[in-house]
Amino acid sequence: MKGKITVAVDVMGGDNAPAVEVAGAVAACRRWGIPVVLVGDSDRIAQELSSHATDGLSITIQHASEVVGMHDSASDAIRKKKDSSIRVAFELVKRGEAQAVVSAGNSGATMAAGMFILKRIPGIERPAIAAIMPNLVNETMVLDAGGNVDCRPRHLSRFALMGAVYSKLVLGKEDPRVGLLSNGEEESKGNELTREAHTLLTRSDINYVGYVEGRDIYNGSVDVVVCDGFVGNVVLKTSEGLAEALATMLRQEMSGSLLAKLGYLLARPAFRRFRKKIDYAEYGGAPLLGVAGTGMICHGGSNEKAIMNAVKLAADYVEKNVNQTLEEALSVVTASEQSAMDDGQPAINGA
Amino acid sequence: MKGKITVAVDVMGGDNAPAVEVAGAVAACRRWGIPVVLVGDSDRIAQELSSHATDGLSITIQHASEVVGMHDSASDAIRKKKDSSIRVAFELVKRGEAQAVVSAGNSGATMAAGMFILKRIPGIERPAIAAIMPNLVNETMVLDAGGNVDCRPRHLSRFALMGAVYSKLVLGKEDPRVGLLSNGEEESKGNELTREAHTLLTRSDINYVGYVEGRDIYNGSVDVVVCDGFVGNVVLKTSEGLAEALATMLRQEMSGSLLAKLGYLLARPAFRRFRKKIDYAEYGGAPLLGVAGTGMICHGGSNEKAIMNAVKLAADYVEKNVNQTLEEALSVVTASEQSAMDDGQPAINGA
Repeated sequence: MKGKITVAVDVMGGDNAPAVEVAGAVAACRRWGIPVVLVGDSDRIAQELSSHATDGLSITIQHASEVVGMHDSASDAIRKKKDSSIRVAFELVKRGEAQAVVSAGNSGATMAAGMFILKRIPGIERPAIAAIMPNLVNETMVLDAGGNVDCRPRHLSRFALMGAVYSKLVLGKEDPRVGLLSNGEEESKGNELTREAHTLLTRSDINYVGYVEGRDIYNGSVDVVVCDGFVGNVVLKTSEGLAEALATMLRQEMSGSLLAKLGYLLARPAFRRFRKKIDYAEYGGAPLLGVAGTGMICHGGSNEKAIMNAVKLAADYVEKNVNQTLEEALSVVTASEQSAMDDGQPAINGA
Repeated sequence: MKGKITVAVDVMGGDNAPAVEVAGAVAACRRWGIPVVLVGDSDRIAQELSSHATDGLSITIQHASEVVGMHDSASDAIRKKKDSSIRVAFELVKRGEAQAVVSAGNSGATMAAGMFILKRIPGIERPAIAAIMPNLVNETMVLDAGGNVDCRPRHLSRFALMGAVYSKLVLGKEDPRVGLLSNGEEESKGNELTREAHTLLTRSDINYVGYVEGRDIYNGSVDVVVCDGFVGNVVLKTSEGLAEALATMLRQEMSGSLLAKLGYLLARPAFRRFRKKIDYAEYGGAPLLGVAGTGMICHGGSNEKAIMNAVKLAADYVEKNVNQTLEEALSVVTASEQSAMDDGQPAINGA
């Protein structure tokens, strides 16, 4: 089926647009034979394409006259910029001309456009951005990573379900362990939001391991970490900032003496392997879970490799029928919630 | 005045109690001449002391028969364990037999005991734990780091004021830049809590720089980062977990080949300087701001050096009259709030 999956790439969104987006899309098309539609200013796309060898590749251009900037609000982007590259990309999916969208632009606007144009999966009020981070063993999914700043307990409960389904289908984890991010592991910890969400999750059919702490994101003890989008964004940005600062400090120390410099030269391949391990470009993008369609959100500073891997991830998402499985899981859960309500019992998966 | 400042050290709280607490307190007394009272099980303290040379040092023992564990709730700890080491330590301050408390125990219980026994500074509803983290230039203060999981906007506004006063008096920052932790720098970002707190802070006399992101904690662009205790705890634990994971991954890569191992050996002094720079033990402890007395909260896994530095920091806190300056700053702010309310205008520093 993969041969039929076309990915629409919003080439105007990222910090280095459209060069890296075009290069990454071309690379994905060349490497895996995934047909791509490049969405954005057609003149600039044609110019970028001229520096790539594209003979025999299935690459088309879809013109869009506007761009949603990082400072545009999500709702303004939808209402005011009707010919923006991100909207046009999702319109392609709606019309069946593409099956997935990849964008390194404004993530709030990408989420809003996806929701507005493709609607949500039944049973989902709030789609979530699911970031994938390296840990000591393999990787941890953190969601929501920025889409929803103020959440209700039932939203977190749905994030947990969506994260578990994605981890199983795409990351190949048999029975993903799902934790709720809190300020301590004990039941007495947490805030108003997490305490109610904890009660909901305890009653769910998910492999819920209870509260987890920030350190558990990196030690491999859990597969899915659930939090609201405010906290998720803080976790991502804090991690990024700390990793950069540590790298800078280490570099400063390593260049401080001749011996250290020599040591660095000898150990350079080890440093390279280390960097590759923690490079988010290897992970591509963060899936937009809960939208009735496929969207992959990339870091604004994405390079060619990140875009390339995100295109592959988007095609995998479609190929593995993630949304269909999500719909099935949700219909079971909502039916059981409904029957509990009919019996006058408290809902077990909503709040 | 420093000669007269006695520090009560709760020696029973940390993961390696009482050995590291006793050793750290003895070291601080020896190095800076700070008199210390060791609070906890007197037999175990005497046993620990026997392995240190304490001749001529001003070290006394105060027996306490109980210990508040990490799993005890803060309120239970206060109500049920009346002879706990942390309560007895604060009682010493109340009676004037010590001027400050240092503890590596349960931080929630330490905050609750401090508040219960010493009361709060007028104008403060919620004391905060102020963690000090290294950044690329010097250090960033993050508060609240775990004391208050559910906050109101006016609490964050007070945290900002307290952080600014401490940064100026103790960390020597002339006009500390204070930021509010959010999911983006634009005014349109934030959640319900931060948006209201942002409005309050914009009207305050603090050097408020607006919203900051997780990455700003480490890049040196801001001196004080304000957030609720849930988010603050997540920031700290995420940072700790990431730094540990990166160190492990780097170590694995460095031991992967003979050349890398040799490189590591040559660069070892550089690695050591790097580790020292990011070692929290260098920073000692996190002050408990807003309590009408001095408390320094240490990491549960503190080593001797961390305790030693925390004792020094506690003595500095008293010596520099932080609480008196805080009281003065608060009386100005609360007077202006009161007069605004009398005029029927919205409060400028409360909510």
